[in-house]
Amino acid sequence: MGLNIVQKIIKTHLVEGDMTPGKPIAIRIDQTLTQDATGTMAYLHFEAMGLPKVQTELSVSYVDHNTLQAGGPENANDHLFLQTAAAKFGVYFSKAGNGICHQVHLERFAVPGKTLLGSDSHTPTAGGIGMLAIGAGGMDVALAMAGEPFYLTMPKVVRVNLYGKLRPFVSAKDIILELLRRLTVKGGLGRVFEYGGEGVKYLTVPERATITNMGAELGATTSIFPSDEQTYLFMKAQGREAQWRPLQADPDATYDEVIDIDLSELEPLIACPHMPDNVKKVKEVEGLRVHQVAIGSCTNSSYRDLKTVGEMFKRTGKMVHPMVSAAISPGSKQVLRMMDKEGYYDVFLRAGFRILENACGPCIGMGFAPPSGGVSVRTFNRNFYGRSGTKDAEVYLASPETAAATAMKGVITDPRDLGLEEIKVFLPEKFEIDDSMIYAPAADPDEVEIWKGPTINYVGYKEPLGDKLEGEVLLKVGDNITTDHIIPGGAKILPLRSNIPAISEYVYSVVDETFAQRAKEKGGGFIVGGENYGQGSSREHAAIGPMYLGIKAVIAKSFARIHHANLINFGILPLVFVNKEDYDKIDQGDWLEIDLSNFAPGEDNIITVINRTKGISIPTKHGLNKRQVEIIKAGGVLAYVKQKFEKKNRAQ
Amino acid sequence: MGLNIVQKIIKTHLVEGDMTPGKPIAIRIDQTLTQDATGTMAYLHFEAMGLPKVQTELSVSYVDHNTLQAGGPENANDHLFLQTAAAKFGVYFSKAGNGICHQVHLERFAVPGKTLLGSDSHTPTAGGIGMLAIGAGGMDVALAMAGEPFYLTMPKVVRVNLYGKLRPFVSAKDIILELLRRLTVKGGLGRVFEYGGEGVKYLTVPERATITNMGAELGATTSIFPSDEQTYLFMKAQGREAQWRPLQADPDATYDEVIDIDLSELEPLIACPHMPDNVKKVKEVEGLRVHQVAIGSCTNSSYRDLKTVGEMFKRTGKMVHPMVSAAISPGSKQVLRMMDKEGYYDVFLRAGFRILENACGPCIGMGFAPPSGGVSVRTFNRNFYGRSGTKDAEVYLASPETAAATAMKGVITDPRDLGLEEIKVFLPEKFEIDDSMIYAPAADPDEVEIWKGPTINYVGYKEPLGDKLEGEVLLKVGDNITTDHIIPGGAKILPLRSNIPAISEYVYSVVDETFAQRAKEKGGGFIVGGENYGQGSSREHAAIGPMYLGIKAVIAKSFARIHHANLINFGILPLVFVNKEDYDKIDQGDWLEIDLSNFAPGEDNIITVINRTKGISIPTKHGLNKRQVEIIKAGGVLAYVKQKFEKKNRAQ
Repeated sequence: MGLNIVQKIIKTHLVEGDMTPGKPIAIRIDQTLTQDATGTMAYLHFEAMGLPKVQTELSVSYVDHNTLQAGGPENANDHLFLQTAAAKFGVYFSKAGNGICHQVHLERFAVPGKTLLGSDSHTPTAGGIGMLAIGAGGMDVALAMAGEPFYLTMPKVVRVNLYGKLRPFVSAKDIILELLRRLTVKGGLGRVFEYGGEGVKYLTVPERATITNMGAELGATTSIFPSDEQTYLFMKAQGREAQWRPLQADPDATYDEVIDIDLSELEPLIACPHMPDNVKKVKEVEGLRVHQVAIGSCTNSSYRDLKTVGEMFKRTGKMVHPMVSAAISPGSKQVLRMMDKEGYYDVFLRAGFRILENACGPCIGMGFAPPSGGVSVRTFNRNFYGRSGTKDAEVYLASPETAAATAMKGVITDPRDLGLEEIKVFLPEKFEIDDSMIYAPAADPDEVEIWKGPTINYVGYKEPLGDKLEGEVLLKVGDNITTDHIIPGGAKILPLRSNIPAISEYVYSVVDETFAQRAKEKGGGFIVGGENYGQGSSREHAAIGPMYLGIKAVIAKSFARIHHANLINFGILPLVFVNKEDYDKIDQGDWLEIDLSNFAPGEDNIITVINRTKGISIPTKHGLNKRQVEIIKAGGVLAYVKQKFEKKNRAQ
Repeated sequence: MGLNIVQKIIKTHLVEGDMTPGKPIAIRIDQTLTQDATGTMAYLHFEAMGLPKVQTELSVSYVDHNTLQAGGPENANDHLFLQTAAAKFGVYFSKAGNGICHQVHLERFAVPGKTLLGSDSHTPTAGGIGMLAIGAGGMDVALAMAGEPFYLTMPKVVRVNLYGKLRPFVSAKDIILELLRRLTVKGGLGRVFEYGGEGVKYLTVPERATITNMGAELGATTSIFPSDEQTYLFMKAQGREAQWRPLQADPDATYDEVIDIDLSELEPLIACPHMPDNVKKVKEVEGLRVHQVAIGSCTNSSYRDLKTVGEMFKRTGKMVHPMVSAAISPGSKQVLRMMDKEGYYDVFLRAGFRILENACGPCIGMGFAPPSGGVSVRTFNRNFYGRSGTKDAEVYLASPETAAATAMKGVITDPRDLGLEEIKVFLPEKFEIDDSMIYAPAADPDEVEIWKGPTINYVGYKEPLGDKLEGEVLLKVGDNITTDHIIPGGAKILPLRSNIPAISEYVYSVVDETFAQRAKEKGGGFIVGGENYGQGSSREHAAIGPMYLGIKAVIAKSFARIHHANLINFGILPLVFVNKEDYDKIDQGDWLEIDLSNFAPGEDNIITVINRTKGISIPTKHGLNKRQVEIIKAGGVLAYVKQKFEKKNRAQ
C-alpha cells in the first residue's frame, strides 16, 4: 500500500512503535532549532547531560525573541550564554538581528524529508519545504540534541486538497484562516495536515510556510507540503539546490481524513478578537477604525510578503494613514537586504512605516503594545487576549495585503478595493545570501568557555530515588490546579527562567506565600492534590521548581498529561489514590512514609503511603512504564540519559 | 561696548531684568520642543491653562523616547494624546519613527538667533546652529507655549576659543570630552559656553551640535556657536537657506571667562564609568574587552557620524567582531534615508550591525541593556551608574570613530590604529528632505478631539488660597529629604507620569506606606521638614502628587531651590521656621492653623502657625516675591496664568 508524505518521513525515522494513529512512537531527529526564550534551558539541560557535542546532523540556536533587552542584564546574559554554549557544543548560532528562527531556518537550513524538532510552537514552518518539523519543550529538544529519539503519538494524517487558483489579493494567509474558520483551534489535535492537489503548484515555498506555520493554531502536531519544482526553485535561489530532494505522496496513499479547499472561492479573511479561529470575511468588518498595523512575524515577513506590501504602496503612492502607527519587522536579514536591494526599503521609509528589528517583536508582545481599547491589525498568528501587551486591545489577524490596505486607509479595508492590478511576486533567481551573522561552532571546543552571567543558575536533577521516601505534607490543594498556580507567568518572573533558585521562590506563591520558605526549611516533602493536577500551560518550570525545593512525590486523584510527563522528567514521583476518598485522609502537615522497595512498572504496581501522623495506610498506584520507572529511579531524565551515555561509553 | 552672541540674543528677547550675571531675568521664547516622556505633562498643563492655541512662533511635539511601547498601553496612549493635542493646539507633531527630537529640530526647524525652550536637557543641541536653546521642565515649556516668558538667572558667558585643526579620527566628541575632562560635570553651572575662534570654521553644523548637545553634561545653561558660512551651507542643504541669518560676536565683545583649546593637540578621548567627566585618552584604556557597541543618540547619530562609521567599515571590509553586539540607532529618518541612498545602510547590514529604530533607544535605557558586568562603548552623552539598565555594566562614552574601531576589534581601540586614510565627510548639497512624518496642526482645531486614554488623568491645580489654612500634620520628616523620597522613580512608577491620581498613591511611599491613604482620609494637611527639603531631581511630580493629596503647606528649616519653585507652581505654600528650634515644637498628628490674612510679598512677611494641639504659636517666613504670592493665592501657576489670560480677554 502506498504511503503519504508523513508516513514516508516517519517510516525512515522510526525508532520505536508502529505507525498506527493514536499509538506511541519514537522517531529519530535530524535537526533541532531553539530560540532564546526557550533555548537557554534547553542548552542548560544539554550541558547537564555531560555530552561534549550534539549528536544531530544540524542544530541551530537563534536569538529572536528577547531582542529588546530592556530592563536588566537577563536577556543579554542569556544571549551570551547561548553564543558560547553553541560554540562549544557544535551548534550554529544566529545572532540577534539576523532574523526570526523559522524564517532563517527555512531559508538556510531546512531540508525536505528530514525531521526537525524545535523549542518553539511554530517550528512547523519548515513543513513548507517538505520537512517534518515539530515544536516541543526545551527538555525534548535537549534530548534530541543528545541523540535520543522524540516520543510522540502517531498522528492521524489529514489530506488538505487545494484546487483552483487564488484570486488577486487573496493569499496564503487566507488559506490557513479558512482552515481555522472551518476546524477551530482544536481541529488539528493529534493530526498532521498534509497539503496536496493541483493548487499546491502555484504556491511558492514562503507561501506554503505561512500555511504550515499557522497550522500550529489548529492544534496540529505539524503540517507539511510536498517537495516539488517550487521547492527546488526556492532552494536553488538560496544556493542550496544540492540539498533538494523530491518528496511526494504515493499515488495510492491513504489518509485518515480529507479536506477540500477551492482556492478560487476564497476571499480576504480576518481573524477577529481574541482567537485565531474567530474568522470572518474582511468585507464583514471593513470600515472599522484602526490604530495600529503590524507587518511581520514568522507567519508573514518573507520576501514575498514584504515585496507585496511594498508594491502596493509603490503603485498607489499612498502613505500610512496619519492616525495609524504602522510597523514592519522583516523576517530576516536576507529579507531586509532583498528589500533594500530592490528599493522597497526606501518605499517603506517614504510611506511612513516604522521599521523594527528583524525579530519576533510585537508578535510576542516585545513592544508596539496598542493604546487602550486600540484596534491593531497584524499579519501574525495569534491574537489571544492580552498577548499584545494591552489587555483591552482588539487584535485582528490578516494577510499582508489586507494589512497594507488597512494601513493606507486607516480603517479595515479589503485589498481588492484599492483597484490595483494583480501583484505577482516571483522568487528572485538568487536571494542575497549572507550568513555572516550565523556563527559556526568552534573548531576547537576545548578553547571555548561557556559564559554564564549571574542571572543563570541551573539545577537540573536530584538524587537517585532510594527505597523509601519520608517527609511532611507541605501543601494540600484542591481540584484543577494549573501550572500557573504552581509557577506563575508574568513580566516579573519571565526573566528568571534561566535562574532555577530564583524562580523557585515563586513556586505556589499565588496559593501560599510561605510555601517555598517552608519547603526549604523542612528539606522538602510531599504535595497532595485533587483531580486534573497540573493542567494548563506546558511549562516545565512547574516541575523544576518543586524539584529544586525538594518535593519527592505528588499524590493526587488524577494528573494532567503534560505536567505528569514533566514530573517524571524531573524525578518527582506522581502517585494516584487507588480510592479517591483517601484524599480526605491526609492533611497538610502530616508525616508520610512511602516504601518503594517494590516500585516497578505497571498499572497494578501498588505503592503504600503510610500516614504516620494519623496511623493509617493508603494505597496508591502510578502506572508508569519501564522507561519512566527508570527515569524516576535515576532522579530524573537527565540523570537517566547521563547514566545511559556513561554505560555506552564504558561499553565502547 | 560690543556684545557677545549670547548677549545679543538675550537682549532682543529680554522681558524682565538686566543682563548682569547671577541676576534673575525673563526672556521671550520663540520656539518650543517637547519629547514624549515629558511632553504629555507639558500639554496637559497647557490644556489646563485654557488657551486655544500656542502663542509661540513654532512649537513641535516629538515622539522619540518611549518608542518601544512595551508592557502596556501607557506609551501608545501618551503618543495618541500627544498627536491629537498637537493637532488641536497648533503644534507640529513628529511621529514615532521620524527621529530624535534634537536631531530633527536641528535639521528642520532650528533658526539662528532665535530662542528655543525644550522639555529635555539636551535641548542645547540647537546651539550648533546659533540658537539660544535651553532645557526646562514641562511646566516651563507649557508656560512658554502660553506666551509667558521664561525666568532664569542671567548666566556667565564663557568664550571657548577653538584654534588649530582636528587631526584625522579625532572629532567633535573629543572636543566636548576634553572640556568635560578639564571642567567636570559641575564646571558649567550658571554658564553659557559660546564657541568661537579660527577652529570653528572647520566644524560643520552636526559637529557643532555634538558639542552643544553634550555641553549639558557640563551643567551649563546652554552652549552656542556662531551662525556663519557653515551654518548657511547646512541650512541650504536642508532647503532652509531663507531662514539663515549671520550671527557673530562683536569684535569687542567681552566674556566672563575664556577657555582655549588647541584642536591639533587633541587625541581620541573616552569617558570611563560612571560619569561623563571621567575622561581618559583612548590609548590609556585600549585593549579592554567590549561586549557591546552602540552608535546613535542625540549626540552622535548625524549624517556625518553614521557616514564616517560606514566609511570605516567599507574601507576596511571588516565585520563587527563576533563577540560584540553592535547597534546603530540613526538620529532621524533623514539620516537613515541618506545612509540608504548612499549605500551605507547596506554596509551596516553586511557588517553585522543591528539597526534599531530612529529614536533615543539604548541611550535612555530603552533596550540593549548590557550583560552583567558587561563593557559597553557608546557614542552617547551619559554613562551614569545603572542608566543602561544593567546596574553593574561599565559604560564608556566615545566618538563614532572610536566606537567603530572598537566594534571591529572587540576591544577598546584607538581609531588611528586601523591605519586608514583620513575620512572627510562633507555635507551633501541637498539632504533627503522628507517631512511626511511631521504633521502640521489641524486646519480646523474645533474638529479635533483630544484623545485621552484611561491611563491619562490630569489634575493641575487646586482651589485658590483662602485666608486661613487648617489641618493635621500628616508627616514630619528630617533633613535632606529628596524628591526621590517624595515620589520614587523606577519602572513601576514611570508609566504613571501622566496619571496624577495613580502616581499620587506613591507619594512618600518609601518613607511611610500609609501616607497617601492618610492624606486622603484627612482631606489633606501639612508636612513638616528639616534642612534642604526637596533636594535632588527636579521632577515636578514631587509637588503635583502632594498637591493632589491636599497638602496645603510645607513648613521646613530650609528648601532646595527647584523643589521650592515647584511647590509654588502647584500652589503649596513653602514656609520656613524663623527659629529653627521650633521644628521640635510640632509633631506628626498635631492640628495647625495658619492665618493668611496678612500674606504678602517680602522677606519680612511673618506668617504665624498656631499649633492647636500644643497651644503654641510659631513664627514662619516665606520670602516670596509679588508674582510668587499671586501664584500661591491663585492656587498655583496654572490658575494664575489662567486668571491672567481671562483678564486680558475681558480687557480686549
